[in-house]
Amino acid sequence: MFNQLTLSADVGELSVLRYTPAGVPILTMTLLHQSEQTELGVLRQVACEIDAKITGDMALQWQNSAGKRVEVKGFLAKRSLKSNRLILHIQHIEMKKVNDNGS
Amino acid sequence: MFNQLTLSADVGELSVLRYTPAGVPILTMTLLHQSEQTELGVLRQVACEIDAKITGDMALQWQNSAGKRVEVKGFLAKRSLKSNRLILHIQHIEMKKVNDNGS
Repeated sequence: MFNQLTLSADVGELSVLRYTPAGVPILTMTLLHQSEQTELGVLRQVACEIDAKITGDMALQWQNSAGKRVEVKGFLAKRSLKSNRLILHIQHIEMKKVNDNGS
Repeated sequence: MFNQLTLSADVGELSVLRYTPAGVPILTMTLLHQSEQTELGVLRQVACEIDAKITGDMALQWQNSAGKRVEVKGFLAKRSLKSNRLILHIQHIEMKKVNDNGS
């Protein structure tokens, strides 16, 4: 069963680093995405904000990443048992260079 | 700028077929996803509901797809200018066979 999102985005707000009861570091962040995508052969402007969660050593490394351009891969899940809001669980994240034209 | 979701899901509620002012057919559907995904080396149960939109000839073809297992590819966008809710714009959809164990 597939559930894989690949997204280029700018890191927006970051939470304070927390730890699970088992001692696993967790960081939540807002990912701000803007791009052009094709629908029915027509190029359209797309924008969205996606809540994301990053755990383990990656959470420690990305604490000060606000404003950075990143490329992430991960899976979508509901935020909690009682919520239907989506959160992206980041499995892979890397820094990307912002081009001169902002793209 | 990447924005690509690949998702296996069951089609839940479907809207009535609508048409844009330009005459393009639009169908919205809820996609119900359940799977096991790996996070920090640990397998975990994942579930989510994702609103999705399908346009053009695909919308005509998938009007009676409630309950079907599908695999979709598309991009995420905010639902409207004023909303931060996400909607998946489906660019590709295909039927999948449900295994005997429901997976």
